[in-house]
Amino acid sequence: MVKYQEAELNDIFAALADPTRRALLARLEEGKDGLSVSELAQPFDVSLPAVMKHLTVLSNAGLIRRQKTGRTVNIRLQPEKMAHAMAWLRRYERFWSDGLDRLAAFVEDRTKNETPTDPPAPQDQEDR
Amino acid sequence: MVKYQEAELNDIFAALADPTRRALLARLEEGKDGLSVSELAQPFDVSLPAVMKHLTVLSNAGLIRRQKTGRTVNIRLQPEKMAHAMAWLRRYERFWSDGLDRLAAFVEDRTKNETPTDPPAPQDQEDR
Repeated sequence: MVKYQEAELNDIFAALADPTRRALLARLEEGKDGLSVSELAQPFDVSLPAVMKHLTVLSNAGLIRRQKTGRTVNIRLQPEKMAHAMAWLRRYERFWSDGLDRLAAFVEDRTKNETPTDPPAPQDQEDR
Repeated sequence: MVKYQEAELNDIFAALADPTRRALLARLEEGKDGLSVSELAQPFDVSLPAVMKHLTVLSNAGLIRRQKTGRTVNIRLQPEKMAHAMAWLRRYERFWSDGLDRLAAFVEDRTKNETPTDPPAPQDQEDR
């Protein structure tokens, strides 16, 4: 069970590690009814076979679903698997939300006193 | 700017696509003050050079920070970058939150007609 989930997370994160694949997902997000492969590929400066390869990776990771209707293949987003990736990341949320709370308090203090100073540099936050 | 963010997301998701690297991050989550490389590597059935390689990938993705103190290298979690990955995933949340609402309603209906059960054990939580 755990092994299966690990393999699933490997596939999901690996699928998301490519900018064209993320852009394909973002494009699918727009249309509720899905898109044909050629519609989907249209704005990309990538060959159709390359798009097909990316779609196979996304499909194997469970992030999209391909359905053949007559002569066209319809691609739909299947975002449930992204929820698994998000659930994994969420355990770390308390770390960065602590940091954001402190930043919010700092900004609030500053605006109260109206004394303009520089916001904390990113390095200061990282050095916590 | 966008190019930079894309490259950053590539590195983060690629770093998370390996179960040993995810386990290393999970282990770092426990200790606030970080761990030495040998402490960190101890429970893993992987050679020290292999662990070092994984740490380089995590460090290049900005997910950990290595700091040399005397003769030991201290490794700390740097979870801010995971927030970037999470922010990317969050745009898809509306898709699955619809589904989760339906699931919650279903579970609520079921538990109304049932006797109370034990809360989930910590392991169950991790297995989600």
